Amino acid sequence: MNSGYFKNTSNCSAFLCLILISVLTYSCRATKGKEQANLITIRQQGSFAVGGSVIKNAGTFDPIKRTPAGQSYHGDHAYVNFQIPDKARKLPLVFWHGIGQFSKTWESTPDGRDGFQNIFLKRKFSVYLIDQPRRGNAGRSTVSATINPTPDEQQWFNIFRVGVWPNYYPGVQFAKDEETLNQYFRQITPNIGDFDNRVITDAASALFTKIGQGILVTHSHSGGFGWETAIKNANIMAIVSYEPGSGFIFPEGEMPKPIASSAGELTAATMPMQDFMKLTKIPIIIYYGDNIPAKQIAEPGADGWRARLEMARLWRDVVNKHGGDVTVVHLPEIGIKGNTHFPFSDLNNIQIADLMSAFLKQKGLD
Amino acid sequence: MNSGYFKNTSNCSAFLCLILISVLTYSCRATKGKEQANLITIRQQGSFAVGGSVIKNAGTFDPIKRTPAGQSYHGDHAYVNFQIPDKARKLPLVFWHGIGQFSKTWESTPDGRDGFQNIFLKRKFSVYLIDQPRRGNAGRSTVSATINPTPDEQQWFNIFRVGVWPNYYPGVQFAKDEETLNQYFRQITPNIGDFDNRVITDAASALFTKIGQGILVTHSHSGGFGWETAIKNANIMAIVSYEPGSGFIFPEGEMPKPIASSAGELTAATMPMQDFMKLTKIPIIIYYGDNIPAKQIAEPGADGWRARLEMARLWRDVVNKHGGDVTVVHLPEIGIKGNTHFPFSDLNNIQIADLMSAFLKQKGLD
Repeated sequence: MNSGYFKNTSNCSAFLCLILISVLTYSCRATKGKEQANLITIRQQGSFAVGGSVIKNAGTFDPIKRTPAGQSYHGDHAYVNFQIPDKARKLPLVFWHGIGQFSKTWESTPDGRDGFQNIFLKRKFSVYLIDQPRRGNAGRSTVSATINPTPDEQQWFNIFRVGVWPNYYPGVQFAKDEETLNQYFRQITPNIGDFDNRVITDAASALFTKIGQGILVTHSHSGGFGWETAIKNANIMAIVSYEPGSGFIFPEGEMPKPIASSAGELTAATMPMQDFMKLTKIPIIIYYGDNIPAKQIAEPGADGWRARLEMARLWRDVVNKHGGDVTVVHLPEIGIKGNTHFPFSDLNNIQIADLMSAFLKQKGLD
Repeated sequence: MNSGYFKNTSNCSAFLCLILISVLTYSCRATKGKEQANLITIRQQGSFAVGGSVIKNAGTFDPIKRTPAGQSYHGDHAYVNFQIPDKARKLPLVFWHGIGQFSKTWESTPDGRDGFQNIFLKRKFSVYLIDQPRRGNAGRSTVSATINPTPDEQQWFNIFRVGVWPNYYPGVQFAKDEETLNQYFRQITPNIGDFDNRVITDAASALFTKIGQGILVTHSHSGGFGWETAIKNANIMAIVSYEPGSGFIFPEGEMPKPIASSAGELTAATMPMQDFMKLTKIPIIIYYGDNIPAKQIAEPGADGWRARLEMARLWRDVVNKHGGDVTVVHLPEIGIKGNTHFPFSDLNNIQIADLMSAFLKQKGLD
């Protein structure tokens, strides 16, 4: 074989070779692409406590007698579980549960589908899940608590707008099998001691100090805590809030009147103008689901949300009047029907996630 | 170009082509190999409640008055978080925390390294983490509880054999910076209501009924619960137990005398022979760490473990006498020094994991 011969044939064989190489490279890429669709590739995952305080008893610890003298007690921290996917986007998502709930809110759904944790990991966001102080895995509370097993689940079924017990709302985005409801009710876990706004928002703020800039995603009770945390910490670059329940912060002198509802009177919160103004510096989007009455009804579960939606709109107007960027989306008004108080775990949660993705894209935060 | 010409050159160019293809294939594999070492590729992850019971109040639920009448309360379940890696091994590992602890035991360590969750995911095991009933994220208890913030951490520091407060044991496998200790203490979370062996082991057994065959990994308090669960459920194919604390089950009539210690008297548990015999059907390995005294000392934290190690050896002998396969490994005896009560999160936890991997391989369970 001479070099000329080799040269003469190389064009042809190189062509065949290229085809083979292309097929191989493609199949290599195709496998990766397919894997990316179905798999979650994690670069780092773990958990930690953040925030909290320490009680220290006077005296010297006696290792033999072991009385409380000279001993310490670390409590009131948040517990945070995080996953950072391979090739993660710049800003992480920090997910914060609502009342009576814990990180499970964002994990796989009661009927076993992907929740927002998995959906947004697959969309290449780093995901942090909070258990707020005195809840779930952050159960070490610095205050005493007595917890009684008082049956209350039919009340939550109504407040969470799955239906009016024992009936489901027509077209509700919630699987109606028995095991789903069993899992849904077992997502409840008690608060160990009273709510303490300062303790709770300090811990959440400490998280953003630790991890840096990120996007806060709140639900229900954490909605109000979220506004307060954003005032404390400028690392919160945006807030996505699902059905915030209370704690809408107005500037002093601009508070609206309380809103009457069958669930009680809903009052606004207030702060000095200089604190309030921090809420005008970041984009905020708020979503409410379906089956919220337009006018007062006797059933307090749903009626409470009528008052909260109304308050959210008043709040939007005041924040935006001062230069803010708040959007309130009432999902049925854009044609998305049947959502409960937990849109992110409802049957249409991919559609709900798509709305959130579109918001982040629009604001240049993805 | 004729076919003969093409044929003549094809041998040579095919050879070159093969080299190129080999290089490409190798680089494709090499990338994957590198990724496998650093990344965790998850096929499925989620969480669920398992086991538990339901309290149902008599009467009919009134959606307006919302009294407890006619309402339900789901409680006493375990909460389970799971991850199934791509190309997972056949048998999953089920990790169960000890007293005062929750799933965190197995997650990233107090000083932020990989814990057994990540280490064994990287070794391609599916991993299930339990929060036992009335603990952590499984806080919905069917019994009332009063929880007080009583300082007790110096006591746990000693019981967990990090040292004798405020001194660390020389050579202890525990990072001595302040933040590590802060994280370590914040891993404690209260029990919400009394321990109920039946409730706890029923929930763990229900997990193995749900997921099928697997390997149970217990720690401390869950050691005893683990033996009981294995008697209830034949899907437990092996047990790896780190420093089991109590509840060693002997057959009726073969109980050893209580063992005296400065931490109190350690008594054995007992069951009928037919139940006990189930523990002789599976391989069991037990590990204890360092700084356990050979003879009674006044400091009860360490001395309690002297009694427990002695009881574990008595139990091993009885189970093996009846045809069982129990091994007790006192780590310092095989030259592994400095381990605390949490060997799986100690500084040498890769070495500790290697021992577990070797055991599973030896028993044909990996």
